[in-house]
Amino acid sequence: MTQTRTRSDRYPSRVGTEASITPRVEPVVHPGGPVSVLSDEQLAGFEREGFLLLESVFDGEEMARCRAELTAMAARAEVRSTPQAVVEPTSQDVRSIFEVHRSSAVFSELARDHRVADVARTLVGSDVYLHQSRVNLKPGLRGKEFFWHSDFETWHVEDGMPAMRAVSASVALTDNTEFNGPLMIIPGSHRSYVACGGETPERHYEQSLKRQEHGVPDAGSLTRLVEEGGIAAPKGAAGSVVFFDCNAMHASGVNLSPYPRSNVFLVYNSVENTLEAPYSGQPPRPEYLGSRDFTPLG
Amino acid sequence: MTQTRTRSDRYPSRVGTEASITPRVEPVVHPGGPVSVLSDEQLAGFEREGFLLLESVFDGEEMARCRAELTAMAARAEVRSTPQAVVEPTSQDVRSIFEVHRSSAVFSELARDHRVADVARTLVGSDVYLHQSRVNLKPGLRGKEFFWHSDFETWHVEDGMPAMRAVSASVALTDNTEFNGPLMIIPGSHRSYVACGGETPERHYEQSLKRQEHGVPDAGSLTRLVEEGGIAAPKGAAGSVVFFDCNAMHASGVNLSPYPRSNVFLVYNSVENTLEAPYSGQPPRPEYLGSRDFTPLG
Repeated sequence: MTQTRTRSDRYPSRVGTEASITPRVEPVVHPGGPVSVLSDEQLAGFEREGFLLLESVFDGEEMARCRAELTAMAARAEVRSTPQAVVEPTSQDVRSIFEVHRSSAVFSELARDHRVADVARTLVGSDVYLHQSRVNLKPGLRGKEFFWHSDFETWHVEDGMPAMRAVSASVALTDNTEFNGPLMIIPGSHRSYVACGGETPERHYEQSLKRQEHGVPDAGSLTRLVEEGGIAAPKGAAGSVVFFDCNAMHASGVNLSPYPRSNVFLVYNSVENTLEAPYSGQPPRPEYLGSRDFTPLG
Repeated sequence: MTQTRTRSDRYPSRVGTEASITPRVEPVVHPGGPVSVLSDEQLAGFEREGFLLLESVFDGEEMARCRAELTAMAARAEVRSTPQAVVEPTSQDVRSIFEVHRSSAVFSELARDHRVADVARTLVGSDVYLHQSRVNLKPGLRGKEFFWHSDFETWHVEDGMPAMRAVSASVALTDNTEFNGPLMIIPGSHRSYVACGGETPERHYEQSLKRQEHGVPDAGSLTRLVEEGGIAAPKGAAGSVVFFDCNAMHASGVNLSPYPRSNVFLVYNSVENTLEAPYSGQPPRPEYLGSRDFTPLG
């Protein structure tokens, strides 16, 4: 398709060119935020690695309440039938439910909790709003893998997020172990932008949430990133939170344990980095994937 | 189909009944073998856990020679086109090559090496022959998972192996890490026989090597085994060998690292446990999957 590109695009991807790696433009930690809740060591670790694991942020009772809410939501027919719910075609398992900060009081409260949101404000150096929220359920013995990807690549190309100034928080509702498909990150990968080959088909999100075929980094780039940074799996117990940069290359394996692995995924974007038109030249994805309500969290 | 069952079958499975767990009949370690190369502690560990990891059995040069042989074999068109080669339908990657102790001098020598074969003789308490051999290649970024299974269930039902008196050796040609889909075992599971529901279709092996649908343990049995024994991943460096009981429930995850995970898999059966007619009532699988040459290894 013909694309009109009048804006400058600092991170072009899927524009019919070859895959490539270019350096990140923005800083990783943006100073000057309204609060500062991390130590110098924690800030340096996030700057260097692109992620930060905080243990015991929430207690057992809080996580049990979230798990009960998630189980109840995933069982409700009126939730399962919405576009916000991603249902596994073969098993009929609910894999994810998006926009839970709007559909659930429990998750709305979690997303606004200062123990999480203040870390995001510290890292992006400003007030924040929620670009996306979801719960992920990786059922025991059946949970599938997610291949390596940078969220920012998709948010930039398909949602119009201009710069790398967003941070994701993955709140562990269940213990993460090496056997239940925990989050894996390539340390240092957040400082490199992997542009992907190909283009973006129309309404790509309708299939990409089940099986991603566009915006997938190439093997050469992934190998180079792993050769430089290795692979880390910041496995925390239930109640822990992994914060990771929007451009950190991450993945997760299958869940071969008999127990579910569940988390709440909260994406905090800087209010100074609000969405523009998607860089793919196509219409923006639905609100539940990339919110255009830029009201700062209270 | 109608099956005539005149023999007694101590481990019935896939005979149209429900899944069930019954206790193992035979001992785990069979005394009285021609050699004894394990310590009391190692024997007790194998008896209890169903596996034993031995580090640095082979040196770097020996493993490099095996890797070169494997790479050369997987590239040869006349190897890839044999029934012994399992080729991934989408990527055309070679996933496994069977019967390498017959087709390759390098792997034949490895299979007969006393550092491995004597451990097998010690555990099964007799001379041994090779029931099966294969090399497994789990390519970086593309290697698939294997779901939980007991090899003995298949060897009993489809090959006619009467009793649990065989041991597998997995020789690591590359380092095993938590990121490249290492072998996972449920400790203690070798003492329980999980009979599977359903029946065995004819020529089941033609598709089961790519995607197993029969002889798959049920979620309830797996959960019970893991609740009792947990999950272990005996990750060794290249040159290490994991010995595991023929009835140990095992699996492996995807390889999300950019590097291949390769091993040589050698199945030593006791010469006092040679194959009979398959308990499925169907013709035996081909020689390269379950050998009927019971000549003891020298």
